[in-house]
Amino acid sequence: MTGRVRDLGYHSPMEHLEGRQSVLSALHARQRKFQVILIAHGTHAERVQDVIDLAAELGVPVSFVDRRELDSLAHGATHGGVLAIASPKPRSSPAELLERLTQVGEPPLLLLLEGIDDARNLGFVLRTAEATGAHGVLIKKHLWDLDPVEVARPASGAYERLPLVQIDTIEPLQTLQRHGMKLLGCLAGAKTSVFEADLTGPTILAIGGEKRGLSGAVRGICDAFVTIPSRGEPSSLSLAHAAAIVLGEAMRQRLARGGA
Amino acid sequence: MTGRVRDLGYHSPMEHLEGRQSVLSALHARQRKFQVILIAHGTHAERVQDVIDLAAELGVPVSFVDRRELDSLAHGATHGGVLAIASPKPRSSPAELLERLTQVGEPPLLLLLEGIDDARNLGFVLRTAEATGAHGVLIKKHLWDLDPVEVARPASGAYERLPLVQIDTIEPLQTLQRHGMKLLGCLAGAKTSVFEADLTGPTILAIGGEKRGLSGAVRGICDAFVTIPSRGEPSSLSLAHAAAIVLGEAMRQRLARGGA
Repeated sequence: MTGRVRDLGYHSPMEHLEGRQSVLSALHARQRKFQVILIAHGTHAERVQDVIDLAAELGVPVSFVDRRELDSLAHGATHGGVLAIASPKPRSSPAELLERLTQVGEPPLLLLLEGIDDARNLGFVLRTAEATGAHGVLIKKHLWDLDPVEVARPASGAYERLPLVQIDTIEPLQTLQRHGMKLLGCLAGAKTSVFEADLTGPTILAIGGEKRGLSGAVRGICDAFVTIPSRGEPSSLSLAHAAAIVLGEAMRQRLARGGA
Repeated sequence: MTGRVRDLGYHSPMEHLEGRQSVLSALHARQRKFQVILIAHGTHAERVQDVIDLAAELGVPVSFVDRRELDSLAHGATHGGVLAIASPKPRSSPAELLERLTQVGEPPLLLLLEGIDDARNLGFVLRTAEATGAHGVLIKKHLWDLDPVEVARPASGAYERLPLVQIDTIEPLQTLQRHGMKLLGCLAGAKTSVFEADLTGPTILAIGGEKRGLSGAVRGICDAFVTIPSRGEPSSLSLAHAAAIVLGEAMRQRLARGGA
């Protein structure tokens, strides 16, 4: 019973950050309040010196603990001896995203995911979105039922840096459209290949889940539809890999234009 | 103890196939020996009619069992009421792969992965490799320590259809090179972008793990190196998403040539 109570205490409203990279990225991003950073005894000093230095600079307490204690606190096995307890990363609002897009100095690129239900895959997508030059990710979902720790770990820091906006109606998308962004829906069987579409302007790339695809509501406001001309069945790509291919193509086009 | 013995009995040498799609793909591929197909009571007949029909055609027994029994046998939660017990899929040898490549009727495209240690991500990559038109995947690994059930599930049938070759030396790669294939190593910091390289000829795309990249042995025989010009740190993409972007680019180039 004690374990359970303690567990609840750590999870709500505090979150875990696991691994040197996640902790360091979150410290740099300065969006969370840190309660404590835990480092396992025996962790090589040079591996965590930057964490310790930055924590000191920001006034975050650091404790050295037994590795088994750290293991018992961690969700996953890849913490490498570093774990932080911190407030959740504040999720961006559509208005904040819009504000931020005015400052990017290039045609904005956003990714909209519908029907994503796997936290780990979302984490990988965030990482890819950042690496390919996207400026934010929108998730259309009525309820946020994804474990932020599971999202953050594979995102390797991108979770801390990239704006992530949860929306539950199409209204924020329409606002973005009024500000000049084009909503491109990825749809199996669309006539235009994503490789032929122009992704260099202000673009929202919308990708739906593998089972149901994009919702009728989102389809109803898309400016155009594109398809990934893959072989085999229409849903032959996973949502996360479809996102990687589409984002990769946007990066290619933008680099070719000299814009990225 | 009984549970453990039973468990061993099912796993070695037999494997599970979980989910309608995996079972159907394996039946179609005709590479495994099926012991039995288990279907949960209450599964909608129209969902599994094709499984039942194909099993009858191939003389594979089908048993209807309690859903809880199926749940207790399954590794994952996504079997949807269908599970098969079958011999492992025979892994392709380099010689078999070479033989198969002579029959593809277009410049062969292979993916070589080094340092992949996540079965689920490998499954997603196999699915993407098939969807983008690759003819096989090579895994350089001394020991096969990946759970085939965990690979097969996200691969959504591609595990059954796509040749998967485990190699532990560079010799099979050199053989492929002697047969005219070009080995392109993906390397952070390479001068040529993958978007500028020609991927339309007979090509092996080599991608290394996120920590160590490609091994010295593989680098030593690469015909050329390419980079994914992503932003941020050199290893900002996960291995699986790097593979998706590179395979997507190969598909784009081949479609533009009218070859795919």
